Amino acid sequence: MNALGRQLLLELKDCNVEVLNDQDYLRHCLHEAAEQIGATVVNECFHAFSPHGVSGVLVISESHICVHTWPEHGYAAIDIFTCGDSVKPELAVNPLVEKLGSKNPSFIELKRGILQNLPVGCELK
Amino acid sequence: MNALGRQLLLELKDCNVEVLNDQDYLRHCLHEAAEQIGATVVNECFHAFSPHGVSGVLVISESHICVHTWPEHGYAAIDIFTCGDSVKPELAVNPLVEKLGSKNPSFIELKRGILQNLPVGCELK
Repeated sequence: MNALGRQLLLELKDCNVEVLNDQDYLRHCLHEAAEQIGATVVNECFHAFSPHGVSGVLVISESHICVHTWPEHGYAAIDIFTCGDSVKPELAVNPLVEKLGSKNPSFIELKRGILQNLPVGCELK
Repeated sequence: MNALGRQLLLELKDCNVEVLNDQDYLRHCLHEAAEQIGATVVNECFHAFSPHGVSGVLVISESHICVHTWPEHGYAAIDIFTCGDSVKPELAVNPLVEKLGSKNPSFIELKRGILQNLPVGCELK
C-alpha cells in the first residue's frame, strides 16, 4: 500500500514574537517554502486577527501549506500537505524554523490517503 | 498542560465520485461544516484541477477547514483545525461523511500547541 499524500505538521514554539504578527512576512515565508519544495501556488488566502495572530493558506497544485500563529504564546502551527513525488516537503522545514526564529521546533509526518491497490510512485493531479 | 488547538483529520474513502469534482458543492459543504461547529469564516480560497480534483480552504476565526479530493480514487482528505472552547469540530464529522457519501470513513484527532503553563480552557483570538 502506498499513500496519496504526505502531511508535515510543524510545532514551532518559542518563536520570534515580532514575525508572528507580520502577515506580509509570513506570506513571504510560505511562498518561499512552496518554491523550496518545488510546489506550484494556485491560490492563497490570509487573515490578520485583532489584536494578534495571523492565519494563512497557500493552495498549491500538490495540496496546501498553511500557518496559524499565536504571538501571545510565541507559537506557530504550520502544515505542509503535499501529494506526488515531485515535491520534497521536508526541504522547507529547517528554513521555516529559522525564519520564524523557533527555539523549540518539532514536527511529525502523517500519510494521507493510504489506499489499497495504489501504484508505488503514484503521481496525482 | 493544555493545547491551543484541535485538528481533526478525516480520511474519506469510497466517496460519491460525482461530488468530489464539484467545487461549488464542496464549498457549500465546508461552509455548512463551519456553521455546524460554530466557527466564523473570515476568508476562503478554492481551486479546481484539470482533469479532476478540488482543493479548498476556509480560513475561520478559529483556524481552518480544508478539503482535497481525488475523484479518480474516490478519496477526500478533510482537516478541521480549531482553537478555543466555543467550537465543536466533531459536530461536522458525520455530516461531511454523509455529504461526500463515504462508505469507508475514519478520522484522527491531534492536539496542536501543547504548551506549558497554558491555562485550562484558554480561549484564543
